[in-house]
Amino acid sequence: MLRAAIVGASGYTGGELARLLCIHPSVTITAATSRQYDGKPLARIFPHLRDRTDLTCRNLGVDEIIDLADLIFCAVPHKTAMDVVPSFLKAGKKVVDLSADFRIKDVTVYEQWYQPHSAADLVEEAVYGLPEIFREEIRTARLVANPGCYPTSITLGLAPLMKSGLIDPATIIIDSKSGTSGAGRAAQVGTLFCEVTDGFRPYKVGGVHRHIPEIEQNLSALAGEPITVSFTPHLLPISRGILTTIYTDLKGQAGLAEIYALYEQMFGEELFVRLLEPGSLPATQHVRGSNYCDISLNLDERTGRLIIVSAIDNIVKGASGQAVQNMNLMCGFDEDAGLLQAPLFP
Amino acid sequence: MLRAAIVGASGYTGGELARLLCIHPSVTITAATSRQYDGKPLARIFPHLRDRTDLTCRNLGVDEIIDLADLIFCAVPHKTAMDVVPSFLKAGKKVVDLSADFRIKDVTVYEQWYQPHSAADLVEEAVYGLPEIFREEIRTARLVANPGCYPTSITLGLAPLMKSGLIDPATIIIDSKSGTSGAGRAAQVGTLFCEVTDGFRPYKVGGVHRHIPEIEQNLSALAGEPITVSFTPHLLPISRGILTTIYTDLKGQAGLAEIYALYEQMFGEELFVRLLEPGSLPATQHVRGSNYCDISLNLDERTGRLIIVSAIDNIVKGASGQAVQNMNLMCGFDEDAGLLQAPLFP
Amino acid sequence: MLRAAIVGASGYTGGELARLLCIHPSVTITAATSRQYDGKPLARIFPHLRDRTDLTCRNLGVDEIIDLADLIFCAVPHKTAMDVVPSFLKAGKKVVDLSADFRIKDVTVYEQWYQPHSAADLVEEAVYGLPEIFREEIRTARLVANPGCYPTSITLGLAPLMKSGLIDPATIIIDSKSGTSGAGRAAQVGTLFCEVTDGFRPYKVGGVHRHIPEIEQNLSALAGEPITVSFTPHLLPISRGILTTIYTDLKGQAGLAEIYALYEQMFGEELFVRLLEPGSLPATQHVRGSNYCDISLNLDERTGRLIIVSAIDNIVKGASGQAVQNMNLMCGFDEDAGLLQAPLFP
Amino acid sequence: MLRAAIVGASGYTGGELARLLCIHPSVTITAATSRQYDGKPLARIFPHLRDRTDLTCRNLGVDEIIDLADLIFCAVPHKTAMDVVPSFLKAGKKVVDLSADFRIKDVTVYEQWYQPHSAADLVEEAVYGLPEIFREEIRTARLVANPGCYPTSITLGLAPLMKSGLIDPATIIIDSKSGTSGAGRAAQVGTLFCEVTDGFRPYKVGGVHRHIPEIEQNLSALAGEPITVSFTPHLLPISRGILTTIYTDLKGQAGLAEIYALYEQMFGEELFVRLLEPGSLPATQHVRGSNYCDISLNLDERTGRLIIVSAIDNIVKGASGQAVQNMNLMCGFDEDAGLLQAPLFP
Repeated sequence: MLRAAIVGASGYTGGELARLLCIHPSVTITAATSRQYDGKPLARIFPHLRDRTDLTCRNLGVDEIIDLADLIFCAVPHKTAMDVVPSFLKAGKKVVDLSADFRIKDVTVYEQWYQPHSAADLVEEAVYGLPEIFREEIRTARLVANPGCYPTSITLGLAPLMKSGLIDPATIIIDSKSGTSGAGRAAQVGTLFCEVTDGFRPYKVGGVHRHIPEIEQNLSALAGEPITVSFTPHLLPISRGILTTIYTDLKGQAGLAEIYALYEQMFGEELFVRLLEPGSLPATQHVRGSNYCDISLNLDERTGRLIIVSAIDNIVKGASGQAVQNMNLMCGFDEDAGLLQAPLFP
Repeated sequence: MLRAAIVGASGYTGGELARLLCIHPSVTITAATSRQYDGKPLARIFPHLRDRTDLTCRNLGVDEIIDLADLIFCAVPHKTAMDVVPSFLKAGKKVVDLSADFRIKDVTVYEQWYQPHSAADLVEEAVYGLPEIFREEIRTARLVANPGCYPTSITLGLAPLMKSGLIDPATIIIDSKSGTSGAGRAAQVGTLFCEVTDGFRPYKVGGVHRHIPEIEQNLSALAGEPITVSFTPHLLPISRGILTTIYTDLKGQAGLAEIYALYEQMFGEELFVRLLEPGSLPATQHVRGSNYCDISLNLDERTGRLIIVSAIDNIVKGASGQAVQNMNLMCGFDEDAGLLQAPLFP
Repeated sequence: MLRAAIVGASGYTGGELARLLCIHPSVTITAATSRQYDGKPLARIFPHLRDRTDLTCRNLGVDEIIDLADLIFCAVPHKTAMDVVPSFLKAGKKVVDLSADFRIKDVTVYEQWYQPHSAADLVEEAVYGLPEIFREEIRTARLVANPGCYPTSITLGLAPLMKSGLIDPATIIIDSKSGTSGAGRAAQVGTLFCEVTDGFRPYKVGGVHRHIPEIEQNLSALAGEPITVSFTPHLLPISRGILTTIYTDLKGQAGLAEIYALYEQMFGEELFVRLLEPGSLPATQHVRGSNYCDISLNLDERTGRLIIVSAIDNIVKGASGQAVQNMNLMCGFDEDAGLLQAPLFP
Repeated sequence: MLRAAIVGASGYTGGELARLLCIHPSVTITAATSRQYDGKPLARIFPHLRDRTDLTCRNLGVDEIIDLADLIFCAVPHKTAMDVVPSFLKAGKKVVDLSADFRIKDVTVYEQWYQPHSAADLVEEAVYGLPEIFREEIRTARLVANPGCYPTSITLGLAPLMKSGLIDPATIIIDSKSGTSGAGRAAQVGTLFCEVTDGFRPYKVGGVHRHIPEIEQNLSALAGEPITVSFTPHLLPISRGILTTIYTDLKGQAGLAEIYALYEQMFGEELFVRLLEPGSLPATQHVRGSNYCDISLNLDERTGRLIIVSAIDNIVKGASGQAVQNMNLMCGFDEDAGLLQAPLFP
């Protein structure tokens, strides 16, 4: 059994890692760290995990974590991650980092959107953990930078098109809607139940959300040229789920059949991408609790625009599930080990 | 007191008309019709209206309605409306029609998106009931075509810009999200609680929603040239509210100040449009239950796009509240009579 | 116009007072205090109130408040209220206190459930602000102790029976369910959206909720003998609303008709109590946003138990609406002034 | 692999059976019947099951089902079940019936609450499928009557006490709250999203819900004497979950420790009952999607009452999960096969 540690176990992504790993056939969780809940059983912080784990959260130092685990999930905020990841790697551990710290290849860009980077020498080595695109690199990686939730839903939605010449990349407009768990478990007025329920709102409008450089890095790499996009996030009164609606102008005479063929080619064998039949549309409630990304392709003949809709569970495929998928690849397990549950509906 | 009839009182817009009119200082509801609930007190169909109305729903014929009322709200589906409106007008009644039947000026376009029109001769006379644009025409109208919910949120969001030359109208992309009350009170699986809650999905993607010709008619009239837009509606797990996110490319060097000035000029004196200060964003929960349309202007300097966000309560400003506002204008009442309640939050 | 101050304007009850008072025909809000949001417009803290109030929250001292207002609503937590109320009264102001500080007549009991009382001399004078029971006393009161939300729903539900001899008061069991706004607007993990939505739970089970002494004081006073009850509160995934289900054994042969007669007698003329016809049941969504208390009486013939169900909006009849009703009585306004809106449904 | 059929696959319990069985290590679903959706892939009716099942729903006759399956889940309404179950048994099949038809041992009682019984001869043989109580009988049963959702939450909550002499059974009052999925997937106004969301209401108050005879049968059997209870169901604005609050008077001097011992004794080894530590309270969101029943024991020392709170997912432990658990016992599989997922939170 692989010994896995969850660093930062008391947040929603930490709890979700525990939920997924506790039924993983080849993994045992050997450490769950939390500064705030030191000494408290994980199943008290997350009562849904009663009887599924008897781990106690501890405020462990880096050396203690290294002693306890072979692979380490970092589920702490950016900045905190870069402080501990180098030590884990030096000790020969494998790391899946769920923060943003090792996602952006251009450290200057990272520092412009986040803050100074203290482990810049590791950025190049880090593999961006989107298995549908970087599967082979992930298999041999020591450090995987697990993608952001919005970037996952967007990159999968657009990947097959970026090199195709069928669209005009300058026209890409991305309108995303996320469940509230994406805001984390910290106490704040803006995500109180009464502020969010029975309501809907955008936030960080006008090209200022920190996921933008990550989105553009992915799309640019796929296209082989610099891509700039409009991206607007919104807050949904649901716990889990991101639905992204992407607009782009078509170039030339490509029809839906040709576009479908590209997606079939890239995703036909993928375990966790479900390309919907023409006329079908995704819904967050149909991927809830699962590692699926559902994608739908739609042509607006009146305007010559392609409308792509993708849906994921932001805590699973958008965070902890994808992290487990990456661990599976890094450790030679079946890629879907621990990820086989069907979505929960209703 | 003006005697008002609600034709089709058992749907959500009918119930909302009753909620608003029961505190209107100059109106008394004298008839509420319903085929399905003939003989049932309105306060049994809508128990929130207990003690506020003692009306009984009746399956009244056109002549009976004419006898009972001076002004008639038609809250029945399209097609049904065009069957009764001509008789009401012939009898000298004023009519506010909440259906789509008299909104589209080009009957050919109407018939292409809906079905054959049996009262085409009245279309020209009908005034499109968006007071912020057609206030003077509404004052003297016999027949007001009350706007659709999506078109209201979109037209108000874009109106000040359409003739300005500051945007490229060919780039307008509209991503709308609506509460479930917009789907009406008919029993259907797709709007059951368990199908909608904790979820989110688009519908009618690809330029096929029936509000498109209405949206384009409004924008074209404002611009003085034919406008074609992309419009994608989504279903929110909330009862009330539409939030619309509009993207359009800027032309030339216009800055946000110049754009704000246009909106101030058009909406500065409006009672029901709240132009948000720069950096503020609307939320459906902040207009809930009210006749307000909140509008926010945002510039994405990275892409040169303007992002306009508007929010309304789809049953109030998007239907029954706007209908009352129109009635107020048609009857010489204060424009905000009966519409003074502040939004309900939380 | 009466000049009214809201002390503690940034919480949900403070915001609701502003919502209600801004359409009150005889009141103008002259002060809104907040330590945390000093200098911030009230409409920024509560964006739904944009254009309805131009008040700025200020961290005012007691003397400044006294200068500005004739009647003062205290919407601050217990303990804080008792620190300021004596000065307001000494200055000749009328006070409606929404905290628990002046509700419990027996100071020993108060101190047992809360903390030491620093203004015990005012407790006797304070009138318990349940107009349906203490209307005449309220009219002449200087200090009204506005009832708690649970006690309001329970006391109105049981009042007509307590002296009737028709029930066995030792068997009263009260199972209440409250919307999350009752927990206030403070940032805490337990009331985050993701913790509450799509879920349901009890809290403070086993006779430990602080509203118990208030409930028992009310019922004992009505019965003329000491009453002890079981009370269990639960947290609903809704913003507003309390629904209380009360069980009690019937004594003797009383039937539903006899019981209805008692309720008709007490509540027949009440503006804000709606006694539902036999077979009808209340729902929180049918009182949402209104000052109504809906009450339903049900007999379980198999067990000889009476089941009373009552529903209120916890922020309106359970707090701010009742406070306005009390102010109306204290100031000689119409009792329903500012409270005429119908509930908001859906 | 066991061949299993789902008769009535298009309802929520049918869909949940498919969700659970598609990851069961020893079962393959060979038939899914639906009259309404004949010819439609199950994954179109339940899009969350895309890629997890390629079954097509068919309107199969009894003989066709018999040919296809070794064990049959009947997920059709009562009355329909009794029409088909006898043929399945005659053909040597095992049956888990999720309807009420074979739960009530006294046919007279059944016919009083439901309708005439056409397969009364099978009632005696049917085993009531609550494994925590009838495990051994279930192992050898041909026909298991899967319990109702409310009765499951109530019977497990009270079972250890019924023979103990520690409570007065005449004082049992049961206040249950259920998610809306319990109302099924049929189109009806009362369970539309807008009718349910942001609201709460009781229904069937006064001892008239059909689960009452089932509850009383279970409790009476456990107690060895006839038990009559008060039972009030309520509708929660959540999809999944039942939380039941049970009140009963204690007799004698029993303390919480003594009561806990009884529960430990009965449930200590149970896989799917989680007895919460003193002071902890259940929540529906902590059992969501799982087969757990969480139970909490609380003493109200002021009134001498015991308050038991239990929580289940009504579609899992309250229906399809318990059906799978029963199948596991009937077929000699591990009792938790296919039921190992942790609850989904948030």
